[in-house]
Amino acid sequence: MTHWEDFYNTHLPPADFEDNRSLLKEFCERHNKLQNRIVLVTSGGTTVPLEHNTVRFVDNFSAGTRGSASAEYFLDHDYAVIFMHRHKSLEPFTRHFTGQQFFDMLDIADIADGQSSTIAIKPDSVDVFAPVLAKYKIARETQMILYVSFTSVVDYMWLLRAACECLAAFEERAVLYLAAAVSDFYIPEDMMVMRMLNYLSSIVSLQPTHKMQSGDGAPTISLQLVPKMLAPLASLWVPLAYVVSFKLETDENLLIVKARDSLNKYKHKLVIANVLQTRKHRVVFVTPTDSYEVHLSREQAHQGLEIEEPIVADVVQKHSEFILSAQQRQ
Amino acid sequence: MTHWEDFYNTHLPPADFEDNRSLLKEFCERHNKLQNRIVLVTSGGTTVPLEHNTVRFVDNFSAGTRGSASAEYFLDHDYAVIFMHRHKSLEPFTRHFTGQQFFDMLDIADIADGQSSTIAIKPDSVDVFAPVLAKYKIARETQMILYVSFTSVVDYMWLLRAACECLAAFEERAVLYLAAAVSDFYIPEDMMVMRMLNYLSSIVSLQPTHKMQSGDGAPTISLQLVPKMLAPLASLWVPLAYVVSFKLETDENLLIVKARDSLNKYKHKLVIANVLQTRKHRVVFVTPTDSYEVHLSREQAHQGLEIEEPIVADVVQKHSEFILSAQQRQ
Repeated sequence: MTHWEDFYNTHLPPADFEDNRSLLKEFCERHNKLQNRIVLVTSGGTTVPLEHNTVRFVDNFSAGTRGSASAEYFLDHDYAVIFMHRHKSLEPFTRHFTGQQFFDMLDIADIADGQSSTIAIKPDSVDVFAPVLAKYKIARETQMILYVSFTSVVDYMWLLRAACECLAAFEERAVLYLAAAVSDFYIPEDMMVMRMLNYLSSIVSLQPTHKMQSGDGAPTISLQLVPKMLAPLASLWVPLAYVVSFKLETDENLLIVKARDSLNKYKHKLVIANVLQTRKHRVVFVTPTDSYEVHLSREQAHQGLEIEEPIVADVVQKHSEFILSAQQRQ
Repeated sequence: MTHWEDFYNTHLPPADFEDNRSLLKEFCERHNKLQNRIVLVTSGGTTVPLEHNTVRFVDNFSAGTRGSASAEYFLDHDYAVIFMHRHKSLEPFTRHFTGQQFFDMLDIADIADGQSSTIAIKPDSVDVFAPVLAKYKIARETQMILYVSFTSVVDYMWLLRAACECLAAFEERAVLYLAAAVSDFYIPEDMMVMRMLNYLSSIVSLQPTHKMQSGDGAPTISLQLVPKMLAPLASLWVPLAYVVSFKLETDENLLIVKARDSLNKYKHKLVIANVLQTRKHRVVFVTPTDSYEVHLSREQAHQGLEIEEPIVADVVQKHSEFILSAQQRQ
């Protein structure tokens, strides 16, 4: 049995899995009938629980900026969008405003009858807010976007496979835009995290820093690798789709080498590589045959342009060429 | 040197620390002059980074429901509120609505001139929204609430001490309501997390599950205890204040015993103890001499009453008695 099959055999699906699967199925069938293009955007980080009954977990940090912004631009290009995101991470449209920013944009006025009131966006905020709200409403009314969410890496794995099962029918018309930051390791349930925490709790806390010596019986955490789902995804689940993965590095020099390694290993179409510190204004597109930079000029960044706009435009262009060449082969 | 002094000596303050300290100082001085009562509400979980340049961290789960709801009720009781919360956790007032709920409550209408538009809350949502918005606006305009935020456990420690330094002047008029879920361990910088991750990355991911054997050179993570700041806080920083801590247990039977242990150790005034599964409708108040339950009936819960309302009412009552008995001693 492969590593990824083993993972599904040993980890139960989340409680809301069947509901989400129905939503995915309905959404995909509708848009496939309409012959629409579709994109699965994954966004945000995944968690790995450290214990049963858990309040502690290991998290991969990602606010969800890349994914939520990209989803908006795919809608602009008339793609149906499955927005598969970490619960509570940033979402398209609403991402532009925090809760306090919303509240501060609003004015309350009493109506003449003295009984009721009206609440409206302040005139000087309407210009900023109206276009975002209008796009949100259109996307909802035309049912061009489906929101599904995950928290743990196990939830993510189950949702990803379910989405792929529905996307396969789109063949070349599907894009997988895998921007989520997926945990690369997890702690097996039988491991010793609870024992370690209990041990730590038993140490009196007001002593000078207690250095644990290896060999004095201090428990340890052993980690296991999360399987790379890109392997079955690209080769088995959606073999005809246009699959885009992301690579985040901290070392600029490794960027292209690692991206190319990934393409060689998984045989997908495109890696968008970026360095943690510069990811908001520069990425590198790496294909099996080519690599080039997409970036914002200082002026563009200053004007509030987001790099996801040219990124998505470029992906859409490549996807169009990909569909065309598939049609020509037939 | 004590454990907690050592912690401050070995961990730098966060980048925005001096800004927050100025805000705390100004807020406290103003309200102290007005002879107001004040409460520090801590809320949300803290993180522990697993590496430098980090995207991975260990998180203590807490959405911030208890703290953000309680802050609203303290404002109702005319307390000045320092709301010290995990960045992006729930906040008073805005907590009642998600981003999509906001967007869905709004209607866009074109103005007759055809050039501009108005955006207003739908009439059927005004009744729910208006009272929340009105309270938010009053709290902001009267400057009764200060928001400061943390992410890591180190940020939290620095902010907590800075807040206490400003609160000391309130003597018995200050309440510390420590509802944040603080990490109990951290990973020292020189530990082996990076080595472990590198080791894991070096294992080919498509092999059958690789079980690491102890003794085969697999690296391990060793953890260290975070010092319990309740010790210096209650005895040194704000020795005259009314200090309330929270205790979350998964075992009902240990609730009162552990709460009493904590009171004996730290000599503060009140532990509010609760079990993970029932925390939204039942807590136990434990004082050095007494313990009793505060809970919502099924009917109250059904009507949308929040348990933080009777919790805060009870804390305020106890705080009033505490102030009175301090005055009588003088």
